Amino acid sequence: MPSDHDTILALIAETGGAGLAEQVRFIIEVDRLKGIVRQSPVIGADRNETDAEHTWHIAMMAVVLSGFASETVDVMRAVRMLLVHDLVEIDAGDTFLYSSPEVHAAQEIAERAAADRIFGLLPGGQGAELRALWDEFEAHETPDAHFARTMDRLQPFLLNVFSDGIGWRKHGVRASQVRTRMRVVADGSAELHTLVERLIDLSVARGYLADG
Amino acid sequence: MPSDHDTILALIAETGGAGLAEQVRFIIEVDRLKGIVRQSPVIGADRNETDAEHTWHIAMMAVVLSGFASETVDVMRAVRMLLVHDLVEIDAGDTFLYSSPEVHAAQEIAERAAADRIFGLLPGGQGAELRALWDEFEAHETPDAHFARTMDRLQPFLLNVFSDGIGWRKHGVRASQVRTRMRVVADGSAELHTLVERLIDLSVARGYLADG
Repeated sequence: MPSDHDTILALIAETGGAGLAEQVRFIIEVDRLKGIVRQSPVIGADRNETDAEHTWHIAMMAVVLSGFASETVDVMRAVRMLLVHDLVEIDAGDTFLYSSPEVHAAQEIAERAAADRIFGLLPGGQGAELRALWDEFEAHETPDAHFARTMDRLQPFLLNVFSDGIGWRKHGVRASQVRTRMRVVADGSAELHTLVERLIDLSVARGYLADG
Repeated sequence: MPSDHDTILALIAETGGAGLAEQVRFIIEVDRLKGIVRQSPVIGADRNETDAEHTWHIAMMAVVLSGFASETVDVMRAVRMLLVHDLVEIDAGDTFLYSSPEVHAAQEIAERAAADRIFGLLPGGQGAELRALWDEFEAHETPDAHFARTMDRLQPFLLNVFSDGIGWRKHGVRASQVRTRMRVVADGSAELHTLVERLIDLSVARGYLADG
């Protein structure tokens, strides 16, 4: 952290208390989510989206698609979970959804360390609450986590479908890989999972996605 | 809209109904919020943030800073408001906060037309609900709107303070202009407004902001 940031944060602590200074430090730190570039395209643009853009988009999707949740969900609690779900990538980076199991296992360890550090910037009770939401998202056991995960998986899928499969074609992704990865969508929404299956068929037919 | 998008949306309507196709069309349309570049810097990066990144950041801030609201607010309702508050800029573009009154008046007309079009993409009841949230944000009369607006104004301010005033210096912004613009912060949070005043003094002292 630059030394001028320390000076500013000291003034904030003096004016609004140590808790506020910790919260502003967290707010400044998580600005770095805008620097994490994902593998998913921005539709019609010659670049990929950032994690911050992705997070806004899935929060917006959760509001719009809440009627399709298979279980009873607290949509705004799912949104709260989504707002923090990718913060760990500030330290751990983004892993492409179709990487090897080894890559995913190493990523999981790095993400837990990142969660300790980043949520640890906040005052105790607040840091613990948001960390618990992140843990809940990762555990994928509750209705809110199921629905949140459904949005998180559906969004890059839709971006690819509406961009002629540009991300899939670049990585040579096959339909069977997408079907496997998208199975968790069914935990949050049976109807949206049915839609995904149909859109995979269409994507193969149109050459967005390799068959088999 | 590209013709292949029409084909995909027709399949979605066939599989999940006309309402779902309208919702997906909205989700794809608002992807363009990632293409609206703001005047505020990403801290430590050589670029400005996009509207989508800004929106995620202020939603996150609302969760973290809710304890500083002066009035009783429903924080997640304010978050819902924030998620849609800038969608109109997809059509109307971003206006720098320190533009002339004439520019702001023209912007307001363009934004109302944009709200009609964009929220009008959604099925009736849902479009009306989100449009009402946008109207409430714009009217700036309720506690939730006060707090949401406070986050919307505080965020670019903090980005400038923590980036040596790079955006202010580029536009030759003066402290008195910032004080006037930041007055609405007091409607949402007296404590955060006090902090802003102190940080303006610091910004002048450090040369981030022109005096007077």
